[in-house]
Amino acid sequence: MSNQQLAIALDVMGADKGIETLLAGCRQAFQKGLEASVVLAGDEARIREHGPGAGLDLDSNKIRIRHAEAVVTMQDKPTQVMRRGRNTSMWAAIEAVKKGEVSAAVSCGNTGALMAMSVLQLRMIEGVDRPAITALWPNIQGGNGVVLDVGANVEANETQLVQFAIMGEAYYRALTGKQKPKVGLLNVGAEELKGHELIRTAATTLREADPEMDFYGFVEGDDLAKGTVDVIVTDGFTGNIALKSAEGTARMIGGWVRESLTATLLSKMGAALMMGSLKRLKSRMDPSRVNGAPLLGLNGLVLKSHGSSDADGIAAALLTAENLARNPFRDEIKTTIAKVERRTERALTQSNQDTEEQKSQQKAIV
Amino acid sequence: MSNQQLAIALDVMGADKGIETLLAGCRQAFQKGLEASVVLAGDEARIREHGPGAGLDLDSNKIRIRHAEAVVTMQDKPTQVMRRGRNTSMWAAIEAVKKGEVSAAVSCGNTGALMAMSVLQLRMIEGVDRPAITALWPNIQGGNGVVLDVGANVEANETQLVQFAIMGEAYYRALTGKQKPKVGLLNVGAEELKGHELIRTAATTLREADPEMDFYGFVEGDDLAKGTVDVIVTDGFTGNIALKSAEGTARMIGGWVRESLTATLLSKMGAALMMGSLKRLKSRMDPSRVNGAPLLGLNGLVLKSHGSSDADGIAAALLTAENLARNPFRDEIKTTIAKVERRTERALTQSNQDTEEQKSQQKAIV
Repeated sequence: MSNQQLAIALDVMGADKGIETLLAGCRQAFQKGLEASVVLAGDEARIREHGPGAGLDLDSNKIRIRHAEAVVTMQDKPTQVMRRGRNTSMWAAIEAVKKGEVSAAVSCGNTGALMAMSVLQLRMIEGVDRPAITALWPNIQGGNGVVLDVGANVEANETQLVQFAIMGEAYYRALTGKQKPKVGLLNVGAEELKGHELIRTAATTLREADPEMDFYGFVEGDDLAKGTVDVIVTDGFTGNIALKSAEGTARMIGGWVRESLTATLLSKMGAALMMGSLKRLKSRMDPSRVNGAPLLGLNGLVLKSHGSSDADGIAAALLTAENLARNPFRDEIKTTIAKVERRTERALTQSNQDTEEQKSQQKAIV
Repeated sequence: MSNQQLAIALDVMGADKGIETLLAGCRQAFQKGLEASVVLAGDEARIREHGPGAGLDLDSNKIRIRHAEAVVTMQDKPTQVMRRGRNTSMWAAIEAVKKGEVSAAVSCGNTGALMAMSVLQLRMIEGVDRPAITALWPNIQGGNGVVLDVGANVEANETQLVQFAIMGEAYYRALTGKQKPKVGLLNVGAEELKGHELIRTAATTLREADPEMDFYGFVEGDDLAKGTVDVIVTDGFTGNIALKSAEGTARMIGGWVRESLTATLLSKMGAALMMGSLKRLKSRMDPSRVNGAPLLGLNGLVLKSHGSSDADGIAAALLTAENLARNPFRDEIKTTIAKVERRTERALTQSNQDTEEQKSQQKAIV
């Protein structure tokens, strides 16, 4: 798809902040060089009402509106969502992907609903069992690692962990251009524990079935911030808890730092002197710098933006969506999954033959 | 046991830092008001060599030495440890607890070995399946939550999670004096996921079998730093990864803060002005303030001190050991576990009777 044709759907409803923030984010994305046109999915009257306040020219040829009245709220349960699902702005945005009208959809809404609707409309890539949600994890190397799954699935078996590794690797390559990202499996460290049986099996499978991958082996929780590897694979339960534990810690320390900067008159004067360095610190800790995480494993590109994204965050998500839409990483996932499936099957057939041979030998001995 | 008789064993070998640091920590503990006497477990010649450098008077009537030549290293695998286990300083420290010579043992050594040796020598409290390792988790309330298990067990079933909750509650009460600590089960948030089946079962059991407990229900990863509850219960795999993820994040942000304080001449001047507040920040982020985590569930008190503890950390661990040794929390655990077991059995018997009654009713209807 050439740049001229590229379009992205933005679900402007169901976010923590109002429509106006989302429209302002869209305007900011254009200012920051977004080339794709944007399809605003949501209540047309409300979009028209808030466009001027957000400074977004709704008559621009880069903007279209796809009317949808209903909203998926953060409190909605999946069953409720599915009942009035087809009238929601979220559904409309994903449908635009399905119909080929846009190359990607971005939503700040309810993650569970976004995933359920995406699977229903777009279906999984052949050979992939379950979608995965990714998170970008800042590290001391100055970059971001990709962690998955962070909450799409409560449990993951060996095969699914292998699929997450393949999807995460292709996604990291698309994000950064690094040809051979290092991939690690999240595990506990103590020698005698060394994780569940299924993590060990996943490690063996990865080594054997995808020898092109730069598979590092096991990593521990503190390797996330160290940047030991580029892609960290885990199940959605562990990933979600690790992510939220770290976010909570970052917020707590951020609060302490702010407090110590303003505790006394002297510290306020000190903080004024170091304004420059503090700005850099703030930008390092700012989650809206990087925003927009694709749901991996789908036949189509759907990005989850933080529920509480501000205009900066929305702009970042739209630019990420454009970048990913131009990248063939989903084709790579498809190819690698198929290749690994073939190799694993061959390995199984091989070991069956071995067993048959052993049996005949045993018979011969008897 | 009166204060005069109280003694604590300190394993002075197998820590990241040398014997001298551990002996200096012991001296510091006395300066900070430790009333118990200390039994130093380790190589007597080396202890005598390093005592003067550490400023510790080895001839004091508060000090005894329990000679043990061998060391458990951090790299040792459990099988290696068990082979030469009985000659190690770690074994000697735990043995002193077993023989009633001391009320507690403190070690900075290999966690896996410490746990294996403790279980072997001291055995589990009746009714407790597996020991749990705890961690103190600082929160924005200014206190510390207790998280367990953070690595003793890779998996935990419903019954074990319930046992962890009971042990964590009693331990928190011992630490802080709070009579009714709030207890939560760590889980993921998304409505449609709401955790594994076994976490839901554990929640139901806790509500029914220990109605005296202030059981809050499920908490998420970010509730750890928020201080939503006092005791956070999880399996050792998830707990270990959450803890290390958060520690890694704290170290990364700490590094960023230090960097921004010294980035330019202006920021250095600024940092000088705010010295007072920064000291407070540093002390908040200092892990050695709180050190010494008991292995819960054993018939005896064994505390794990951070492997890289400095003298401050060792002193903190010895003072924590003294505090816990004077507290009846292990008796409380025993009583509550027995009570919950009885209630659970009664509940089972009851539901069996129900079933029998239903059966006879059904028969009657037929």
